[in-house]
Amino acid sequence: MKLVRFGEKGLECPGVWMGDGRILDVRASAFHLQDFDAHFFSGFGMHMLRQLIADPGAVYVDSSAVRLGPPITIPSKIICVGANYAAHAKEFGHDVPSEPILFSKAISAIVGPNDEIVLPAEAQVVDSEAELAVVISREAKSVSRQRAMDYVAGYTVLNDVTERIVQRAGSQWFRGKGFDTFCPIGPFLVTPDEVDNVDNLRVWQKYNGTILQDGCTSDLLFSIPFLIEYISRGMTLLPGDVISTGTPPGIGSARDPKVLMRAGDVIEVGVDGLGSQRSVVQECESLHVEC
Amino acid sequence: MKLVRFGEKGLECPGVWMGDGRILDVRASAFHLQDFDAHFFSGFGMHMLRQLIADPGAVYVDSSAVRLGPPITIPSKIICVGANYAAHAKEFGHDVPSEPILFSKAISAIVGPNDEIVLPAEAQVVDSEAELAVVISREAKSVSRQRAMDYVAGYTVLNDVTERIVQRAGSQWFRGKGFDTFCPIGPFLVTPDEVDNVDNLRVWQKYNGTILQDGCTSDLLFSIPFLIEYISRGMTLLPGDVISTGTPPGIGSARDPKVLMRAGDVIEVGVDGLGSQRSVVQECESLHVEC
Repeated sequence: MKLVRFGEKGLECPGVWMGDGRILDVRASAFHLQDFDAHFFSGFGMHMLRQLIADPGAVYVDSSAVRLGPPITIPSKIICVGANYAAHAKEFGHDVPSEPILFSKAISAIVGPNDEIVLPAEAQVVDSEAELAVVISREAKSVSRQRAMDYVAGYTVLNDVTERIVQRAGSQWFRGKGFDTFCPIGPFLVTPDEVDNVDNLRVWQKYNGTILQDGCTSDLLFSIPFLIEYISRGMTLLPGDVISTGTPPGIGSARDPKVLMRAGDVIEVGVDGLGSQRSVVQECESLHVEC
Repeated sequence: MKLVRFGEKGLECPGVWMGDGRILDVRASAFHLQDFDAHFFSGFGMHMLRQLIADPGAVYVDSSAVRLGPPITIPSKIICVGANYAAHAKEFGHDVPSEPILFSKAISAIVGPNDEIVLPAEAQVVDSEAELAVVISREAKSVSRQRAMDYVAGYTVLNDVTERIVQRAGSQWFRGKGFDTFCPIGPFLVTPDEVDNVDNLRVWQKYNGTILQDGCTSDLLFSIPFLIEYISRGMTLLPGDVISTGTPPGIGSARDPKVLMRAGDVIEVGVDGLGSQRSVVQECESLHVEC
């Protein structure tokens, strides 16, 4: 299944992407599923959703008529893995790490897969980073890598947008990666049964139509099972939590000449089998928002 | 007012600490206040609470008979400020920063003010860090320092427990500061009207009864209004979000000989006027939890 959330910002409804121009409207279908939240993932949500798809009374909306939001509700945490592709570590001037480098993105940075990315006032060198992200299905505490995949609700695309000057300025990456709109997620949460081989998915980014990143999850230094084991050793993962697995090489700021995000640019990021995002870059002034 | 949340872990009820052995039981008092969450802070929650205190029908519980949880529900983010006391920056071997260093603590690390601090299996060098924390009352986006205090719901004590080896190993501090139980918060959320001068509060830590830290918020490099302005410039603060302002000098691992947290130790941290915490240190094995 491909789970989506559709509707206005902050008022999204849960749905299932049918792939034929329709979205199954979960709330309208009287199965008492309110949203794709911790309760949904840790309970019988997925099971009920499969029943709902087979229900002749299911209600649908036209997918071309609605905005897509992030495919999950607010998680307790988004944990990102830095420098998890050796070639990206090198282009970023970072050692290839011997253990995962973990940092978090601010929850308030989350937007939908086709929403604008707004450059904050102090933005100078901003990159997009295409990533495969994993969503956790149930409380994971000291889970072994052998059992780790039992804790995966599904996969999605995450753009780890980053302001490099701010990232490097203060040793900690939280602010430079945590500005509002710097975390587009989606379009889908794809359940594991629909992904043939998560260790062999193409991860890519296009900048105004030109390929910038073109990597493959086969090059991940630390695999998904390893990451779940590593993180959950002492830090409990909660249902709906997101682990973003890192970005492959090719980012704009590491190129010569640099390719930097400016107002009007169109950024597309995607993971094969998981769909893609399309974000138009804006400056905060142009949106008439405080910045 | 001093807001508290009391009851079993995960099932805490909101209350008001009366200071005479009683806690006003907010939910039992039929004012339709469910909890100290984003809705409470951004709406009329505080106003209703003041009315409730004056209500002759208010219901109370015995404060000595209940556990205290963290005084707020799960926030969207806990933003911490690193090296915000010059003397602590030096003892930690860090430059005195020219701009705030921001990092976040994992939401899953939050516990109550008198709960155990559990050392994870790989713990070697663990410190407590006493801090003054600020709770945000309403959405804050590009707020000037002049108006910043209008966005403060109140103040609390936060212990930024830290595993130093893990903190230093991978450049990012998120994991070493994000283990389960590494974020005791409370006992109270104290409203600003009860704090005479937030820029002159004693911040202290005792290790088995001996003073380790004894600082004052007058030594903060970056003040609360400055921090709210700085953070909210591009990163929206949401109602209930926590900013922890950093720790004064005196931490155990910077001493000679080092004073390190071991099973059985009693750690007390406090901020004058805001109450104090008392945490017993445990090893995860001794609690029979997975670790």
